Amino acid sequence: MALIVAKFGGTSVASPERIKNVAKRLVRIREDGNEVVAVVSAMGKTTDELLGLTNAITKNPPARELDRLLSTGEQVSMTLLAMALEELGHRAMSFTGRQAGIKTDAFHNKAKIAEVHNERIVEALDEGIIPVVAGFQGIDENGDITTLGRGGSDTTAVAIAWGIAADVCEIYSDVDGVYTTDPRIAPRAHKLAAVSYDDMLELSSAGSGVLQSRAVEFARTWGVVIHARSAFSDAEGTYIKEDPEMEKAVITGIAHDTSEVKVTIRAVPDSAGVAARVFSALAEAMVNLDMIIQNVGDGGVTDISFTCPGADLSRATAAMDAILPQIGARGYAVDEDIAKVSLVGTGMKSSPGVTAKMFSTLGDNKINILAISTSPIRLSVVVDAAQATAAVQCLHTAFGLDSDSVFKETQLSAEEIAAKMAKGR
Amino acid sequence: MALIVAKFGGTSVASPERIKNVAKRLVRIREDGNEVVAVVSAMGKTTDELLGLTNAITKNPPARELDRLLSTGEQVSMTLLAMALEELGHRAMSFTGRQAGIKTDAFHNKAKIAEVHNERIVEALDEGIIPVVAGFQGIDENGDITTLGRGGSDTTAVAIAWGIAADVCEIYSDVDGVYTTDPRIAPRAHKLAAVSYDDMLELSSAGSGVLQSRAVEFARTWGVVIHARSAFSDAEGTYIKEDPEMEKAVITGIAHDTSEVKVTIRAVPDSAGVAARVFSALAEAMVNLDMIIQNVGDGGVTDISFTCPGADLSRATAAMDAILPQIGARGYAVDEDIAKVSLVGTGMKSSPGVTAKMFSTLGDNKINILAISTSPIRLSVVVDAAQATAAVQCLHTAFGLDSDSVFKETQLSAEEIAAKMAKGR
Repeated sequence: MALIVAKFGGTSVASPERIKNVAKRLVRIREDGNEVVAVVSAMGKTTDELLGLTNAITKNPPARELDRLLSTGEQVSMTLLAMALEELGHRAMSFTGRQAGIKTDAFHNKAKIAEVHNERIVEALDEGIIPVVAGFQGIDENGDITTLGRGGSDTTAVAIAWGIAADVCEIYSDVDGVYTTDPRIAPRAHKLAAVSYDDMLELSSAGSGVLQSRAVEFARTWGVVIHARSAFSDAEGTYIKEDPEMEKAVITGIAHDTSEVKVTIRAVPDSAGVAARVFSALAEAMVNLDMIIQNVGDGGVTDISFTCPGADLSRATAAMDAILPQIGARGYAVDEDIAKVSLVGTGMKSSPGVTAKMFSTLGDNKINILAISTSPIRLSVVVDAAQATAAVQCLHTAFGLDSDSVFKETQLSAEEIAAKMAKGR
Repeated sequence: MALIVAKFGGTSVASPERIKNVAKRLVRIREDGNEVVAVVSAMGKTTDELLGLTNAITKNPPARELDRLLSTGEQVSMTLLAMALEELGHRAMSFTGRQAGIKTDAFHNKAKIAEVHNERIVEALDEGIIPVVAGFQGIDENGDITTLGRGGSDTTAVAIAWGIAADVCEIYSDVDGVYTTDPRIAPRAHKLAAVSYDDMLELSSAGSGVLQSRAVEFARTWGVVIHARSAFSDAEGTYIKEDPEMEKAVITGIAHDTSEVKVTIRAVPDSAGVAARVFSALAEAMVNLDMIIQNVGDGGVTDISFTCPGADLSRATAAMDAILPQIGARGYAVDEDIAKVSLVGTGMKSSPGVTAKMFSTLGDNKINILAISTSPIRLSVVVDAAQATAAVQCLHTAFGLDSDSVFKETQLSAEEIAAKMAKGR
C-alpha cells in the first residue's frame, strides 16, 4: 500500500484510445492496493496547435492570454481521463492547477511554483476518488492562470507528490528509464536501476531528454523520489533519489547533445577588456554561452571560440555583427556540425584518473577534441558531429558501462518506436 | 456614446482570419466613441469535436467533467480575440464565466444563470480595456464550471448587458436580422426593423433560428434591448424590444419548421382515461408533444394523432410499443414528411379575422391542413412538407408582408452563403 503520483506525458494521452490505456493503468495501480493521483500533459500536439493559432494572429501574444490559452490543453486531457476512469467504474474528478492548489509567481509562460495547497486532492483521496490534475499550470496572486514552461507537467507532478507526501512520483513516458547512454547510439547501453539527483541533473542538462532539469531540482530540494518508467510496459524504470546505494560506478552515464553550435571569432586584439566586451554583448543578447576557448595570443591578436545552443545563434550573430567592427576583430566562423559528449558521475569526485582516461580513449580512437568543460561530476568534450557516435561508444566501453546484452531497436513495438521518434514532448 | 455588448457566434470566430475581422469590428465600435464588451462562442466546430472525443471514451460522461471540457472551447476563442485586439493596439483582457461573475445553479450541461456580478468587467472598462467574455459558461456554488446549454452564449451576452446596464446587446451572426419569413423560401420577404419580445419568442419556438428563445426570455424579463445583425456587413439588423412602435402589421412574420414528425395511433378504444394513459406514457418517455388531434369516435374506437420533434421519435415509438398492446390500439403510423407553418403577430389578438383568412388562403391554394394549434399571438398549421413553400409564399402575400424588392441569394457573398448553409451553430 503506497501513495503514488503518476504523471503521463502528451504522447501517452494523444488519443482517446491511449487515454483509455492510461485509465486502465491507473486502475491497476489502485487494484494493487495503492492510492493514486494522476497528473497529465496536453494531448499530443495540442500545445503546438494552439501556438499555431496564436502565431496566425500575433507575433507578440500578451503573456496572460497565452497562458490561459495554453492551459486549456491540459483541461481537455484531464477531463477525458477522468471520464475514462469513471467508465471503468472508478470515481474520478479532474482538477485545474487552481483547484489543485498550485500557486505560482506572476511570471507568465515560465512561472515558478510558490506554494502548494493540496487540501482538495487529499479530500478527494479520502473519499475514494482518483484525482486527475492538469499539469503545467498554476494560478498567481491575481487569480490569473500561469504556465510553468517546458517540462512543467513533470514539475507539477513532483510538487503534488511533495504536497501530499506521496511515497513516489512516477513519471511515465515513451522511454522506459535512464540509460548509461542512448541505446540507439551504443547498443550495449544498459538501463540504470537508480541515479542520484546530482547525476540526473547533469545528465539532463547535458542532453539526456528523459526528465526536465526543473522537476529534478524540485525533487532534490524537497526529497521527492522519482520513478521514470515506460507508459507502454510494466517493467521497472529508473529511480531518481538521494545517493542510491546500488550504483557504485565512477561514471553513471554518458550524455550527448547535437543542438549546440561553435562560433570562432578571428583575430581579436589581445588586450585587456576586449574579450570582456564581446562576452558582455553576447550576454545582453541573451545568448547562453556554454564553453569558451581562448587560444594563446600570437602577434597581438588571438582567436576566441565559444559554444552556445543553436537556438541562440541568430541573436549571437546579430550581437557580433554590432560589436566586432568596434573592437577591430577580423570576423567570425560558425560550425554547426559539432556534438557535445559528457561523462557524468558523482563517483568522479574521488577518481582523479577520469580526465586522463577520457583523453587517451578518444586519442586512441583518433577523435579530435575541439573544446572541454568540466563540473565536479561532469566532464564534457566537443567533437565533430561525424565522430560523436564513435566517441560515445568507445567511452561507454572504456568506462565499463557495456552490458552483456545488446539492445535491439526491434525489441520495441512499432508504437514505442513511433513514440520515441516523436520529438518535442 | 453608448455602452454595447457585442456577441459573436462560432461561425464568426471559426478561424484566426475571422477572429481578426471581429477584432477590427470591435475596434470600429470603440473608435465611434462607444464602450464595448465582447462575448464569444467557441470556434466553429470545436464543441462538436470535443463531444466526438468524449463519445470515443464514454457514452455517459460525468456532467461535471463534460462541462469543464466543453468550457475550454470558449476559453480558446476569447484569448485569441483578446490577442487580436492587442495586436491592433487596443488593450484587451479575456474573462472566463467565473471571472465575468456568471453564477449559475448546479444543473450541469443546462445550468440557469442565478446571479451576475460584473465588477471585474466594469473595472476593466473603466481602465479603457476591452473585456472579452467566454459565452456559454458559468460557475456554480461549489466553484465548478457549468455550461448553459444550447444558445448559452446569447444568454451570457444578454445577462452581461443587464449586469453592466448596457444600452444594447448586439448579437452578430451569419444572418443579418429577423425577416418576415425565410427569404430563401419567399423571395419577397423583408427584414423587420424591430420585433417585440413576445413575437420573437413565438418566432423562435416556431422554427426561426435567428435567436435562441432563452436569451429572448431573459431579455424580456430584464428589459435588455437586443440588436440582431450580420457579422459580415454594417447594415442595421433587427431590434428586439418591448412593444416597438414602428411595426403595426397584424402579422409580424411567418416561421416554418420541418423538424417535427406526425404520429397517428390507429383505433384507440374511445373510453375514459385511455388517451390519458397514452399521453402519460409519452410524457414519461420525455417526448415533447406539440399538437394533438383526436378525431370524433366511430364504432367505439378513434384515431389519435400528435406531432413531436423528430429527435424524440425513437423514444415515442418505444413508449408506444409498450403501451399500445395494453390498451388494445391497432398500431401507429409515422409521417416524417410534414412541415409546420406559423403566423406570428402580437397584433393578432385584436384581429379576429386572421384564422379565417389563413384557412381560405390555404384552401384557395389547394393546401391541405393536417393539424392546427394556436396561442394568443400565433397560429400554426401542419401541412405536407411538399406544400410548405407554397404555403409560406401564399400566406406571406395574403397578409401583406411582401416587399417591393425581390431577395436574391446572389446578393450574399460566397462566405455569407457558406455560413448560412453551415447549420448547428
